[in-house]
Amino acid sequence: MVIVMGPEATQGDIEAVVGLVQAAGVEAFVSRGVQRTIVGLVGDVTQLSAVNLRGMGGVRDVMRITAPYKLVSRENHPDRSTVHVGGVPIGPDTVTLIAGPCAVETPQQTLEAAQMAKAAGATLLRGGAYKPRTSPYAFQGLGEAGLRILADVREETGLPIVTEVVDAHDVDLVASYADMLQVGTRNAQNFALLQAVGAAGKPVMLKRGMNATIEEWLMAAEYIAQRGNLDIVLCERGIRTFETATRNTLDVSAVPVAQRLSHLPVIIDPSHSGGRRDLVLPLTRAAIAVGADGVIIDVHPHPEQALCDGPQALVDGDLRELAEIMRTFPQLMGKGVVGDALMV
Amino acid sequence: MVIVMGPEATQGDIEAVVGLVQAAGVEAFVSRGVQRTIVGLVGDVTQLSAVNLRGMGGVRDVMRITAPYKLVSRENHPDRSTVHVGGVPIGPDTVTLIAGPCAVETPQQTLEAAQMAKAAGATLLRGGAYKPRTSPYAFQGLGEAGLRILADVREETGLPIVTEVVDAHDVDLVASYADMLQVGTRNAQNFALLQAVGAAGKPVMLKRGMNATIEEWLMAAEYIAQRGNLDIVLCERGIRTFETATRNTLDVSAVPVAQRLSHLPVIIDPSHSGGRRDLVLPLTRAAIAVGADGVIIDVHPHPEQALCDGPQALVDGDLRELAEIMRTFPQLMGKGVVGDALMV
Amino acid sequence: MVIVMGPEATQGDIEAVVGLVQAAGVEAFVSRGVQRTIVGLVGDVTQLSAVNLRGMGGVRDVMRITAPYKLVSRENHPDRSTVHVGGVPIGPDTVTLIAGPCAVETPQQTLEAAQMAKAAGATLLRGGAYKPRTSPYAFQGLGEAGLRILADVREETGLPIVTEVVDAHDVDLVASYADMLQVGTRNAQNFALLQAVGAAGKPVMLKRGMNATIEEWLMAAEYIAQRGNLDIVLCERGIRTFETATRNTLDVSAVPVAQRLSHLPVIIDPSHSGGRRDLVLPLTRAAIAVGADGVIIDVHPHPEQALCDGPQALVDGDLRELAEIMRTFPQLMGKGVVGDALMV
Amino acid sequence: MVIVMGPEATQGDIEAVVGLVQAAGVEAFVSRGVQRTIVGLVGDVTQLSAVNLRGMGGVRDVMRITAPYKLVSRENHPDRSTVHVGGVPIGPDTVTLIAGPCAVETPQQTLEAAQMAKAAGATLLRGGAYKPRTSPYAFQGLGEAGLRILADVREETGLPIVTEVVDAHDVDLVASYADMLQVGTRNAQNFALLQAVGAAGKPVMLKRGMNATIEEWLMAAEYIAQRGNLDIVLCERGIRTFETATRNTLDVSAVPVAQRLSHLPVIIDPSHSGGRRDLVLPLTRAAIAVGADGVIIDVHPHPEQALCDGPQALVDGDLRELAEIMRTFPQLMGKGVVGDALMV
Repeated sequence: MVIVMGPEATQGDIEAVVGLVQAAGVEAFVSRGVQRTIVGLVGDVTQLSAVNLRGMGGVRDVMRITAPYKLVSRENHPDRSTVHVGGVPIGPDTVTLIAGPCAVETPQQTLEAAQMAKAAGATLLRGGAYKPRTSPYAFQGLGEAGLRILADVREETGLPIVTEVVDAHDVDLVASYADMLQVGTRNAQNFALLQAVGAAGKPVMLKRGMNATIEEWLMAAEYIAQRGNLDIVLCERGIRTFETATRNTLDVSAVPVAQRLSHLPVIIDPSHSGGRRDLVLPLTRAAIAVGADGVIIDVHPHPEQALCDGPQALVDGDLRELAEIMRTFPQLMGKGVVGDALMV
Repeated sequence: MVIVMGPEATQGDIEAVVGLVQAAGVEAFVSRGVQRTIVGLVGDVTQLSAVNLRGMGGVRDVMRITAPYKLVSRENHPDRSTVHVGGVPIGPDTVTLIAGPCAVETPQQTLEAAQMAKAAGATLLRGGAYKPRTSPYAFQGLGEAGLRILADVREETGLPIVTEVVDAHDVDLVASYADMLQVGTRNAQNFALLQAVGAAGKPVMLKRGMNATIEEWLMAAEYIAQRGNLDIVLCERGIRTFETATRNTLDVSAVPVAQRLSHLPVIIDPSHSGGRRDLVLPLTRAAIAVGADGVIIDVHPHPEQALCDGPQALVDGDLRELAEIMRTFPQLMGKGVVGDALMV
Repeated sequence: MVIVMGPEATQGDIEAVVGLVQAAGVEAFVSRGVQRTIVGLVGDVTQLSAVNLRGMGGVRDVMRITAPYKLVSRENHPDRSTVHVGGVPIGPDTVTLIAGPCAVETPQQTLEAAQMAKAAGATLLRGGAYKPRTSPYAFQGLGEAGLRILADVREETGLPIVTEVVDAHDVDLVASYADMLQVGTRNAQNFALLQAVGAAGKPVMLKRGMNATIEEWLMAAEYIAQRGNLDIVLCERGIRTFETATRNTLDVSAVPVAQRLSHLPVIIDPSHSGGRRDLVLPLTRAAIAVGADGVIIDVHPHPEQALCDGPQALVDGDLRELAEIMRTFPQLMGKGVVGDALMV
Repeated sequence: MVIVMGPEATQGDIEAVVGLVQAAGVEAFVSRGVQRTIVGLVGDVTQLSAVNLRGMGGVRDVMRITAPYKLVSRENHPDRSTVHVGGVPIGPDTVTLIAGPCAVETPQQTLEAAQMAKAAGATLLRGGAYKPRTSPYAFQGLGEAGLRILADVREETGLPIVTEVVDAHDVDLVASYADMLQVGTRNAQNFALLQAVGAAGKPVMLKRGMNATIEEWLMAAEYIAQRGNLDIVLCERGIRTFETATRNTLDVSAVPVAQRLSHLPVIIDPSHSGGRRDLVLPLTRAAIAVGADGVIIDVHPHPEQALCDGPQALVDGDLRELAEIMRTFPQLMGKGVVGDALMV
């Protein structure tokens, strides 16, 4: 940590800062200049978190120079981690395809979507029973009935389930059905929910908030990790920018950046970022090529009837192309694909 | 609603769209062109919300031309509303000052802050017992003990309490102490929480999500209103942009825009938007001048010791200036100030 | 300046950095830590601008702690400046109203707009002869013919002229007519143009780039100042954000922030930021209340016929309200208004 | 085009709009509703560009439903174009590698960088003689001396030259040396410059403005095309967002979106978007995988001495990996690579 003091700072101001820092067991090195005096801190600065350094006399700025997260940081955990979901790995050695319907609507639709997903190479099934929707007039999901459908389809297809939870007090219920709990972009700073999924004993997929910096995303993961759960997969799903041609702007750079800062696996959601079917396959290629450890994709047997996000769901013809991508791109990245793409 | 169909749309595609629209009891007017065919819809298009028009053959675009919210819209409710909080009005005829500490820390600190607030003209006391913090290592609030402190200070000062709730399942508890429930920016799309506060029978202050469009903010208010609660005050608190000189960018234009679209009162939080003490008073002036129905401001007796957001809390000297602003600016806007600024 | 070195930095890496810094005549203070080593630099670090410190072994980060601009900075020029335009002051003691048509179209339209502006209290006339338009199919301005119209209207009304220049090689021509040269938001980093207006011997109004940070805006001003011209007025006109309800988001906080960092006057353009007539007066009030040294406003005698930005031009009724604002708000800010609002 | 009229619109308002539209030779279809009346326009609406429809009585909104650009649009030119630069193709059938130093500094540095570029598979040489820099105190380029160095290196290596022009009045000079003119992100709406390069008779690479929507980017290309030059290559180089971990956010989605809207080739600059060496190769892979028709990359023989953007230049070891990417990824996309990567 570096404390910058302005030209108006008195000797007393500087001594007050140094005294406070040393009292917290941290060393302070003072570099005096005409325009600015710099106090460099060396040691465990978390001891200083309750101290309001910015409020002290003469202080112009306080700059952090180490990451504010620990458990998910790569600094103390140089090897990248692999998370297993119902036996399926997500991590540095593989590219995992997660696919399924945006929302669970009927047993028939869910089963068909799962079979499409599996044929394209998916080894995990996604599907939402609880849907956070911007409008209170939009379809909100089937709730527990949807979870039961997912469990039946898992039985039928063998695909473990990834499904979203939107309320801290539903976590136990959802966890009793799901193989992986998903926290969505709108809940990326719902700290009560993050703590609850951290305590649920199931792997968690944490979507990046559409307005979250990479650092805030990792801080959100730290909330989960603090409850003892390090089986976290980060999912980049597009951020909010001024561009309106796409629903959000997929930030592919976030993948190598997050992989360098954290040991957690990072995957990409090419369906929700663009919000357009014609972008899903190009963005899937880009995701694998930038180094993502997996992709999560919407498929629907009849997108024109979908109750949620139909415009972005892949259909049959696209799936053959997706299977082909899964057969070729991971290999080029030196990664295996999990499972087999049966369609090709 | 307007449906735009591309040059590739067949007669059959157009008829399919028109048929579907008419089946929902909505009239369809077709304007055929070489490059585009336009289908204008007239009637209650909410009937069409479950229909995936974008997924139909030949459809290029679907454009909404009426607001997707109803209960909070001004279209059917032309007079602007006044919300009463423990007898204190927030609405078009007044400028209400809400002030207090960012976080409740001790009885002494809360009481002193409340007295400072009152002296500056505040008629409502703010103070957080549950704090959503980006870092899990930061102070998270005192919980129910904090609520009890607030209740004691209300007893002592007569100021009704505005306090944040961060978890749907704490709503009843917080509502048993609070006069107004606050939903924070990080929970602006926490729909479970929105529905819970909608059912709690207390006025609600809904902060704009830092990445929410004005329309999404009004949709979030609609979630609350749907549960039968129209005592909602909207609070603009800065949006996330590329500028880093301020914590967020205060969007003052949002006040007249939201007041035109919705009948709900709109206030501004000049403390959290800038995150800097030196901006609070200029932004307070701007807030009243742009037409805000109130402001909510952080004050702290000893900001250098504050456990939360100390750098932005006003101190004694600032408060005299705040009292002076409250004495002069509302009047110029043709608005009364609620209560009296005693300090001057 | 602070150089942060990672745990992998060797003793040789640190010595290399220190040696290079000292060779540039700057002092270096080293604070060694386990996770990070901090090198604090004290002295004239501009000597180091040609050195690629980030490229050196072991260096993790280089953080600037003083402003990268000098001539426009307030650090060495604590008093705020006043710029005079044809005798009219823009600065800390006044609120100057600049008004006129977005584009000069005809002598009649320009004269009528100038008379409207004057009646509302304007002491400077704005009007564009060269219009930068997003579409090549939109009206691009009358060029020199427009400048002649402006000169005639100045003759008639006595109002000095503020007009935009869009090409470095038009600067002399435009300067031969104008009292103040305007650099628009799209040219905020057109460095050839900035240097040319810096050498033209006329006051300059520099609009903030719609994607420029406050620091980049001040750096653009530094380009002008470097050519010997310190008669620069900064103009905030809205930045680009995700919000689409307004054309741009007016960043009122930029006024006090820029006034603290720079001695230059700062004004606001409430017309172009919102792009909507109904926002112009509320934003004008907010501008004055936040401390702006002036406002620049579009007026048009017949906005429904305007060739450029008609939807945001004020009309007759609005102008009476504008005159009233100019009569009351500056006074409340302890500022005089320049000229008299005749209408009231 | 669709005109939306509010409930307050009178029969006279509607007739006024329809009359004006018909007078411009455009057909108008009126759909009357209680809340809104929709007027659908069919025909050549460019005739209406000088008419201020939004200013007319009762009009709530005017929505465009066809693209505002024509010459660069794919609607009337369904086949994607190939642009040839000194004989080297950039277009749908190939992935072209353009590489070289950010800035030309010395003959030796430029030649070495060109040889590195060529060895990695580059068939075009980039290098800046005129550098637009945020700070007036930063290196601004060698000017014509730099152009002469580039010409000598072209002689020596056979690589045609791509170089930036920053001022309309330098266009002829730069065009006398260059094989392709580059317009940078800060000049993306410098319309004088766009028109000048449009008239220069050389291919143009148009970088996207860091705050430009895809539509504005295509409008900028239309400015060039209007002067008779359709040899335009679009270059995505990152947009400005709230994320600060990268210099800008590379918008890979812009490639398929722009390729669908326009027939022009689209390439990516992975060096300037991230501003970090460790991101260049992952983003290069993502660029090719998303369908870019080429990439433009900074290389430097001694990045630690670079006068401009050293932190992002590739060095020797990276170049072997780049050569390997060029050998494998384009093939997977069904595209040839231009030239041979000699290094492998």
